[in-house]
Amino acid sequence: MLEQVDVFPVTSELSLGPGTTAVVIDVFRTTTTITTALASGCRCVLPAADVEQAMRLIEPYRGSEGLLGGERGGVKIEGFRLGNSPAEYAPEVVGNRVLVFTSSNGTRALLECSDAKTVLLGCFLNVGAVARLLAAEQTVALVCAGNDGRFSLEDFACAGALCARLGRGATLNDAALAARATWRSLSRTLVRTLTTTSHARRLAELGFKADLAYSLRLDSVPVVPAFRDGRITLA
Amino acid sequence: MLEQVDVFPVTSELSLGPGTTAVVIDVFRTTTTITTALASGCRCVLPAADVEQAMRLIEPYRGSEGLLGGERGGVKIEGFRLGNSPAEYAPEVVGNRVLVFTSSNGTRALLECSDAKTVLLGCFLNVGAVARLLAAEQTVALVCAGNDGRFSLEDFACAGALCARLGRGATLNDAALAARATWRSLSRTLVRTLTTTSHARRLAELGFKADLAYSLRLDSVPVVPAFRDGRITLA
Repeated sequence: MLEQVDVFPVTSELSLGPGTTAVVIDVFRTTTTITTALASGCRCVLPAADVEQAMRLIEPYRGSEGLLGGERGGVKIEGFRLGNSPAEYAPEVVGNRVLVFTSSNGTRALLECSDAKTVLLGCFLNVGAVARLLAAEQTVALVCAGNDGRFSLEDFACAGALCARLGRGATLNDAALAARATWRSLSRTLVRTLTTTSHARRLAELGFKADLAYSLRLDSVPVVPAFRDGRITLA
Repeated sequence: MLEQVDVFPVTSELSLGPGTTAVVIDVFRTTTTITTALASGCRCVLPAADVEQAMRLIEPYRGSEGLLGGERGGVKIEGFRLGNSPAEYAPEVVGNRVLVFTSSNGTRALLECSDAKTVLLGCFLNVGAVARLLAAEQTVALVCAGNDGRFSLEDFACAGALCARLGRGATLNDAALAARATWRSLSRTLVRTLTTTSHARRLAELGFKADLAYSLRLDSVPVVPAFRDGRITLA
């Protein structure tokens, strides 16, 4: 039974006990993109801290099997096949492929959770599916990836949406109480509010306006990616 | 005219431009206590980073003029006259005295804002008075002192109450949008919610339950402490 739910609004606050189930949230766009990729039939995703590590990880899958994806500064990395737009991760592109992926915030946050018992990937697309999995856990940490180390509204609101789905039994830390209150206050104007933040405006300027609307579709892709032993697959 | 309002939910995120007006918020209890002390006629407050510095700062005021106040772990420091309970700071105790003060979170946050153009002290007691002063500024940073470096709901909600009073012209950073949403969602159940957090429960266990209710009285002490040149006086 769920006893404790802690939200970490920025990864610098992170401290995970060994029995903790962590959920990494990077709404714009890493966890949204990886959720989409796995729902599209991608076999597994190998997250890389940087481009150098990505190049090493792709090596065994050179040829038709492997795919390189990710971004720096919001845009596709030179030499990579795919960027960080979920729209790119269609079944005909990623089906049965191994994806090596690196991004500015999301993959870093994932790798920082390696102490956790289980690491799941959450976003608005799968919030209900993640909440159902978490109901069987005891101690849960919702880790907001943030934006270059700074507090990010979309990740915090998504953590709050998860808290709101987890029922009333558990103790919430202060940030979880605030995230849930933020979600309750913003849920009716979610798209209007979350498409006007500085991060959202930057992505729109880069040509990714459609990604914003897609990333805010609640419960539209009800699958849960899980990260273990260096690879992300469906839980 | 107010152009930018940034909330810093934890001081580890802090980065202040030289033209910034900072408001340090430590609802439980430093900024509440210092606001109360100045409203009670205390001449000025000298914040100290630690007990050692407090002892040096009090030296010129030994005798009837000076007073030592503050806490560690929530309780009064050995050898100090006063703790960190606003109830202790009555006119007959602090009137016309110089107070040297050190606390676990609030004074540290104050001293971390030394790059700012102006540093004000905010709490629920003076939220309207602070908002009126800020209306004349351009760039404002609302700095949540937090609890041992961690996110603190009462400070974040108070920052949100300030954002809600600052009108619609300014751009809010992500944390300011979340704080305002948190405030809007919690304002009707403020006392019930903010007296059940882990920090509030710890203070209640230490015998300071009355301080919690006092600290949440909106606009009850409409004066604004300002920190400049090492001392806090009324703005």
